[in-house]
Amino acid sequence: MPVIYYQGEPGAFSERAARILFGSSITAKPEASFQRVFQQVARHPSARGVVPIENSLFGSVHENYDHLLRHSLQIVGEVKLRVRHHLMAMPGVRLRDIRSVYSHPQALGQCGIFLKSLKRVETIAYYDTAGAAKMIAQQQPSDAAAIASARAAQVYGLRILRRYIESNRHNYTRFLVIARTAKPSRGKKKTSIMFSVPNIAGALFKTLAIFALRDVNLLKIESRPLVGKPWEYLFYLDVEGSPVDRKLGHALTHLRELCGDVRVLGSYTQGKTVEG
Amino acid sequence: MPVIYYQGEPGAFSERAARILFGSSITAKPEASFQRVFQQVARHPSARGVVPIENSLFGSVHENYDHLLRHSLQIVGEVKLRVRHHLMAMPGVRLRDIRSVYSHPQALGQCGIFLKSLKRVETIAYYDTAGAAKMIAQQQPSDAAAIASARAAQVYGLRILRRYIESNRHNYTRFLVIARTAKPSRGKKKTSIMFSVPNIAGALFKTLAIFALRDVNLLKIESRPLVGKPWEYLFYLDVEGSPVDRKLGHALTHLRELCGDVRVLGSYTQGKTVEG
Repeated sequence: MPVIYYQGEPGAFSERAARILFGSSITAKPEASFQRVFQQVARHPSARGVVPIENSLFGSVHENYDHLLRHSLQIVGEVKLRVRHHLMAMPGVRLRDIRSVYSHPQALGQCGIFLKSLKRVETIAYYDTAGAAKMIAQQQPSDAAAIASARAAQVYGLRILRRYIESNRHNYTRFLVIARTAKPSRGKKKTSIMFSVPNIAGALFKTLAIFALRDVNLLKIESRPLVGKPWEYLFYLDVEGSPVDRKLGHALTHLRELCGDVRVLGSYTQGKTVEG
Repeated sequence: MPVIYYQGEPGAFSERAARILFGSSITAKPEASFQRVFQQVARHPSARGVVPIENSLFGSVHENYDHLLRHSLQIVGEVKLRVRHHLMAMPGVRLRDIRSVYSHPQALGQCGIFLKSLKRVETIAYYDTAGAAKMIAQQQPSDAAAIASARAAQVYGLRILRRYIESNRHNYTRFLVIARTAKPSRGKKKTSIMFSVPNIAGALFKTLAIFALRDVNLLKIESRPLVGKPWEYLFYLDVEGSPVDRKLGHALTHLRELCGDVRVLGSYTQGKTVEG
């Protein structure tokens, strides 16, 4: 089995996504940053990385699109994970004892309503959710808790004081699997593409016509203004099918006639939505 | 002059955006959450709100699109602000004295490389960047600093220890001005639209054809999967022009033929990009 790299500590949502995708017997290696994950995968031909690419509340993680481009890696899979947060502490510690709560900044933000309901509690930003749980397990404070996944509570032997404390229930993160090269695989495929379009009236429409006229279905479209180039846009496109399919293959050839810098980020089996 | 509501404390980036848009003599009122900003604007006919809608690194703030829909408010203006972060402390405190750094979780994340370069420093999540600066000014610690804007240092009398500590220089936030009703105004307009499309092949293409066939230029397009409706998408569209223009007016009528729930979020003068 290949080594799977992810950002965070054991028990992080990215690790959970990796285990859903590759099974529980894999070797999953934590890294300190997304950049390190991409670097490791770029170095090791058999390695895989699992990284978040978009969240239903916070939008696309543009940083990881940038890393994909820079390292010329391929997307080879995906999964959508429902993000659920829990408050956890050392066994024996009660909710009313808690004076500080540690977690990843985004998780603290996502549990804002719950945290506001606690009196005299300070929130402290931590490297990641599972890292906060790990710290609690190591330092064993009697007045501090972490916000993390149920898996983190299990990994670090913490007790869950309050379950499902996220403010918005519709919180899903889409994770991508990245690799140096893609192997052909079966199943219903989707293909992720990036390209830029000069902002002349109808330019984007023409590029979309390329797909529509061939009945290639769009699954995601997003424009991103290019910083420093106010009238040029970068586009993310997810379409149904694979470049080896005749119609998508022709569409990509046609797209390259219009746009100079078309990048096929990968073609992979459409992922399922899984409870976190 | 109307009252301008924003999320955060005096010195927050939203307040800076408000002052760029409305001048320095306005009454700008801080609120604890985006939801409160929308509620205040919904209550007061002459009030305005200033809220972030997208960031060049973190994507769209879907939460604020949701609030716009729920409160039936109008977008009446925009500005793009370059986000710059600085480390600040009480006058006399030196960089090597700092043991803890307070800021908004996203700002802590955006200064990750700088923070990692400091030894034995704990990062602590705070309500917002300016709130962290305010706390430092009130409690006057000799070993703590805040990450916030230059304006916050000025407002709270702090000394900047390190300037421009954000990891990525291409960090821009687009802020919207919201109001209960829009007054007609002059200048080059853009119009923001939301609508949903069932995921049948070519459905989105048909909706874009409505604009392209009338030479209406697209400035932003983004799809957002509808949670719980796996085959239906919500779209954000920014287009050039105003619904009172003949061609955009006809395009919107045509769009309503195809999509049941078209919402014009507002028509407003295109905003400038300003240093933060």
